[in-house]
Amino acid sequence: MAGSSYGTLFKISTFGESHGEAIGGVIDGVPANFQLDLAAIQNELNRRKPGQSELTTPRSEMDQVQFLSGIFEGKTTGTPIGFIIPNTNVKSADYDHLKNVFRPSHADFTYQNKYGHRDYRGGGRSSARETACRVVAGAIAKQLLQSIGIQFSTYVSQVGTIAMNNKAFYSPSEIEETPVRCPDKALAGQMIARIEEIKQLGDSIGGTVQCVIMGVPVGLGEPVFDKLHAELGKAMLSINAVKGFEIGSGFSSLGMIGSEHNDVFLANGQTKTNFSGGIQGGISNGMPIDFRVAFKPVATVMQTQETIDSSGNSVQLEGKGRHDACVLPRAVPIVEAMAAIVILDFYLRQKTTQL
Amino acid sequence: MAGSSYGTLFKISTFGESHGEAIGGVIDGVPANFQLDLAAIQNELNRRKPGQSELTTPRSEMDQVQFLSGIFEGKTTGTPIGFIIPNTNVKSADYDHLKNVFRPSHADFTYQNKYGHRDYRGGGRSSARETACRVVAGAIAKQLLQSIGIQFSTYVSQVGTIAMNNKAFYSPSEIEETPVRCPDKALAGQMIARIEEIKQLGDSIGGTVQCVIMGVPVGLGEPVFDKLHAELGKAMLSINAVKGFEIGSGFSSLGMIGSEHNDVFLANGQTKTNFSGGIQGGISNGMPIDFRVAFKPVATVMQTQETIDSSGNSVQLEGKGRHDACVLPRAVPIVEAMAAIVILDFYLRQKTTQL
Amino acid sequence: MAGSSYGTLFKISTFGESHGEAIGGVIDGVPANFQLDLAAIQNELNRRKPGQSELTTPRSEMDQVQFLSGIFEGKTTGTPIGFIIPNTNVKSADYDHLKNVFRPSHADFTYQNKYGHRDYRGGGRSSARETACRVVAGAIAKQLLQSIGIQFSTYVSQVGTIAMNNKAFYSPSEIEETPVRCPDKALAGQMIARIEEIKQLGDSIGGTVQCVIMGVPVGLGEPVFDKLHAELGKAMLSINAVKGFEIGSGFSSLGMIGSEHNDVFLANGQTKTNFSGGIQGGISNGMPIDFRVAFKPVATVMQTQETIDSSGNSVQLEGKGRHDACVLPRAVPIVEAMAAIVILDFYLRQKTTQL
Amino acid sequence: MAGSSYGTLFKISTFGESHGEAIGGVIDGVPANFQLDLAAIQNELNRRKPGQSELTTPRSEMDQVQFLSGIFEGKTTGTPIGFIIPNTNVKSADYDHLKNVFRPSHADFTYQNKYGHRDYRGGGRSSARETACRVVAGAIAKQLLQSIGIQFSTYVSQVGTIAMNNKAFYSPSEIEETPVRCPDKALAGQMIARIEEIKQLGDSIGGTVQCVIMGVPVGLGEPVFDKLHAELGKAMLSINAVKGFEIGSGFSSLGMIGSEHNDVFLANGQTKTNFSGGIQGGISNGMPIDFRVAFKPVATVMQTQETIDSSGNSVQLEGKGRHDACVLPRAVPIVEAMAAIVILDFYLRQKTTQL
Repeated sequence: MAGSSYGTLFKISTFGESHGEAIGGVIDGVPANFQLDLAAIQNELNRRKPGQSELTTPRSEMDQVQFLSGIFEGKTTGTPIGFIIPNTNVKSADYDHLKNVFRPSHADFTYQNKYGHRDYRGGGRSSARETACRVVAGAIAKQLLQSIGIQFSTYVSQVGTIAMNNKAFYSPSEIEETPVRCPDKALAGQMIARIEEIKQLGDSIGGTVQCVIMGVPVGLGEPVFDKLHAELGKAMLSINAVKGFEIGSGFSSLGMIGSEHNDVFLANGQTKTNFSGGIQGGISNGMPIDFRVAFKPVATVMQTQETIDSSGNSVQLEGKGRHDACVLPRAVPIVEAMAAIVILDFYLRQKTTQL
Repeated sequence: MAGSSYGTLFKISTFGESHGEAIGGVIDGVPANFQLDLAAIQNELNRRKPGQSELTTPRSEMDQVQFLSGIFEGKTTGTPIGFIIPNTNVKSADYDHLKNVFRPSHADFTYQNKYGHRDYRGGGRSSARETACRVVAGAIAKQLLQSIGIQFSTYVSQVGTIAMNNKAFYSPSEIEETPVRCPDKALAGQMIARIEEIKQLGDSIGGTVQCVIMGVPVGLGEPVFDKLHAELGKAMLSINAVKGFEIGSGFSSLGMIGSEHNDVFLANGQTKTNFSGGIQGGISNGMPIDFRVAFKPVATVMQTQETIDSSGNSVQLEGKGRHDACVLPRAVPIVEAMAAIVILDFYLRQKTTQL
Repeated sequence: MAGSSYGTLFKISTFGESHGEAIGGVIDGVPANFQLDLAAIQNELNRRKPGQSELTTPRSEMDQVQFLSGIFEGKTTGTPIGFIIPNTNVKSADYDHLKNVFRPSHADFTYQNKYGHRDYRGGGRSSARETACRVVAGAIAKQLLQSIGIQFSTYVSQVGTIAMNNKAFYSPSEIEETPVRCPDKALAGQMIARIEEIKQLGDSIGGTVQCVIMGVPVGLGEPVFDKLHAELGKAMLSINAVKGFEIGSGFSSLGMIGSEHNDVFLANGQTKTNFSGGIQGGISNGMPIDFRVAFKPVATVMQTQETIDSSGNSVQLEGKGRHDACVLPRAVPIVEAMAAIVILDFYLRQKTTQL
Repeated sequence: MAGSSYGTLFKISTFGESHGEAIGGVIDGVPANFQLDLAAIQNELNRRKPGQSELTTPRSEMDQVQFLSGIFEGKTTGTPIGFIIPNTNVKSADYDHLKNVFRPSHADFTYQNKYGHRDYRGGGRSSARETACRVVAGAIAKQLLQSIGIQFSTYVSQVGTIAMNNKAFYSPSEIEETPVRCPDKALAGQMIARIEEIKQLGDSIGGTVQCVIMGVPVGLGEPVFDKLHAELGKAMLSINAVKGFEIGSGFSSLGMIGSEHNDVFLANGQTKTNFSGGIQGGISNGMPIDFRVAFKPVATVMQTQETIDSSGNSVQLEGKGRHDACVLPRAVPIVEAMAAIVILDFYLRQKTTQL
């Protein structure tokens, strides 16, 4: 109930503050007897970690995951996988000036009022640092799904107003070619330039992450409340800085009429178009699943802002500490991780619809 | 797990097919000792029911709710409220021609493949008829929330490309003034004309519903996975025909930079702007909550379409039966119901954060 | 959270008060495409219903279940099965004298204090009448389990101090031979005589129900918290009037030492003895599962008792209304229903332990 | 679903194998802003840890808990408390001979068949070592409950056939006076002698733990499925080696008739007797809650036993490794921990029954 668990059959429960000793979690419901590639899990963490390129915050965390249980002789045992990621590059003194100040559009004000007590260092639990735990669980889910032919293509499709037009399935190498993780090289160059410009201003900029999933069998998703795209939406909207989600045609469907928008079936059960985004009635139809996630420009800027302290006094807040001008490149593995968690969970749920 | 329940503390479990005997549900976790206005619940159902105006499908269901438990001497007992809504205007023979045919962009194909057996009459469980049960639960939630000063303003803000610019809080009477439930009278006229035009074509058109919620106390929403807007997103995306969701600035935040987008605090704890949409770090900050929901043009059109049958043969599907050219006006009470369910659930969750 | 749902994958949510219009429920997670025997479900209800023999309360309810959804052309669709059981023989006036009085060892006092408002007629939600809904769900579970070779033998093994010694698997016909549902005919006679005697006194008597389950595959049950016998225990203890539960050797294990109590494996994987009751480490081992459930003498007696009213005044409570001197015979189908729900739920859960 | 989580609002998710690197868990839903006594938590672990007295296994684990999150400046933040307990005294080589052998009445056979792969060292996940994590969560719950006047008295009431007659509330110092944790000193002496005797034989012996809880407010527990004693029963039956549970009069109610068994109300709302064990209709009535838990003689004995290996061959299994002749003294803090978790969870649930 308290919000730190996700999933039903494949389930993660996480803990940890940005400047505590460690973050970590418990992954329960991992199918047994599966050979895990631990290096591949660490590699996903490396794609998320700060300091990986000039484009990201210089906080230099190793983000080294330590597995404590649930894996024996390299294979999953079916029992929970416990893990921790120590916080190493903790500069809590950097945050002393924030002890009694509410940063604009951060969670300082709401946490203080919700709980009456908060760890103000680096945002505490509200820091996007917690997403590293999602990446661990997602990397495990992705390996399991890959073994049954499900593939993910997740990339930056827009930075500010610089946007790709299509939403094709790109390979990992195409995506990783540039540090901005946009597979369109020309646009990637423009995006990088724009991010550098914003960074110089001490400001921030948003964008979208596109995710395309191939090989999802027909039948995943549940009727009514737990529709596959509803759960994907929740998963994405739970990521820090996300303000919007759309599946298939999404908001652009408003410009169409029904006879244009309907996906006509072909004899092989596939559809001629895919405005449905691979999901009909909340259930996967075997076509590629595609969705987009909108990230706002993040709240931390290196500028002086007016705000209030916990006594309601107006104060000037100077921008200091570490800063990501654009989180989109680092958001890619997070979006992919959450997508993998959702798909695996529904894959397992679908196994229970027949005796 | 099977998708027909929603909520954690205030929780609804629904059942029912479009052409079965009845639809209904169980609402558990209703706070005790609360005087219910049963007529107001029925009134919400009337706002959703088919045949209420020239703009909607002519299926003429009474949608009369019958409460079976959980209410004694007009007040809630704290035990589950069971209810049914009989299906009266059932013309199952209208659907015989669909027995072995998969309608484009409906759930026929996915249900058949998910379960291996389906009630094909009127879409069975995948029919939007199930949303009547949501409206019952939502109407109860709304009454409880109103008693503690939480108010909803939900309306049609866009039909096709005809769109309102602002997202103010309008009163119920302003919204109900036109059958399209758009409080901007000039635009409402254009929307109605556009819907009539589409209806003549036997086609369909989408749009957006805007929801603004006032009076939500600071502190609702849970960290990490169960952020308030993530759950609102899931709730909305679970409604039939929804393809997108955005909170606060949403997708339009992509055109802004951080220093513009940050909501600066005023001395009273409110914020100068509200790009956050009333939620920061997943937790309500006391400002109005506002979000938008995108509905695609619905799949039922009165035109001949090519499709396949269950043996994979190409067939011509003629458009017959009853048809909503634009579901947006009827979607308004559904969006509001789901919003009320979510807010009440988080309100109760928040009560448990202190001993 | 509010207690009216049970199960994880195969899940029932019930509603209804003893003297409301109807009781009923929603069963979600029913495996699809299974041909149900509706008469067999009604037959289980008949085994539970009042007035079925001289031994039980004369309240004469038909307990006729009406299915409203989830079944199409006789087969499950995988979507929720909604059902109601109308309350027909409602004599609410019989309960007027109880409006402000707390019956000893009933739930009147606790419901009033928990909720601040209660339906006092016939105990409202606390009435054992709600168990009829469990029987419906259990009867469906039992049919599904029978189709994969799992069989139940549930019977009265003790009334007062009249007790069977063994705990064998008896056939349905052996159990149903006497109205007391004890398969040992000599003891059954004694039990019936004892119940008649207690009935004449206007008093009540308890006993135990024994359940033996054959054909459960190895592997059902989850480690740590959701051990199979822990969930069976909860299921049984949730039935009205139950005060104790034991699995396998149970409390009698206290008189043994480890070397006697250990179940030695045979070459075929079975065990020589079965003190474990078919469950080791919380997981079924393929041997018969056996447990016992202790029912107290129920609280309704036809005698004058001292008690208090809602203002704290001492009052004399006369025994009137309808009365079961011994609920054990009627408890048999309830215990069996809950056992079937638990086993089916774990059966489905086990399907998700492998990819 | 996979069994390693417990609780609804106050919730623990645990991980860890007996001979892995560490065990640990995540506690979510901890009420915020509460000053924790960390030494008191460690003290509960010390009461459970092996090697604490001559009566217990000599495995000498420090069982030192390390908190990683959720506590800031000594107070709970309302966010999850993550913790680990390193495994230090790991002698895995001791278990090499068990790699392919199924120990009688252990979980080796069932885990192997459930998952197809298991960590055989020291029983892996099925080891009672996991209960240390329950003790951590329970110790936190106990502190919270003590602050609102709820007190626990948990002790050994029976070893083998040596049994206390009463079930009074004893103080911690009375209980801790002897290493067997039986507050009746004369019986404690007999119990210790009996355990020493059994230990010399390389055998094991069971017993019962009694728990009495004072100060529970009226109203905790939910109707129908989540009755307070049903959940207590599940919590207890989930502890390793438990075979039975009874509340209040329990199995002894079979020797009584209703008019004797009914708890007559006094003018102050208390009852003259307490056969109900403090719970009526599944809801606490303000009287002391009392229940008993039966532990079998544990399966590890220092004797040679016949069994089978994973190929089905008969083998001789020699008793070696470390051995608890009687786990009852160490079970006391585990029973108390689970009781505290259940009571706190229902305490929080009760807060949500009113708006």
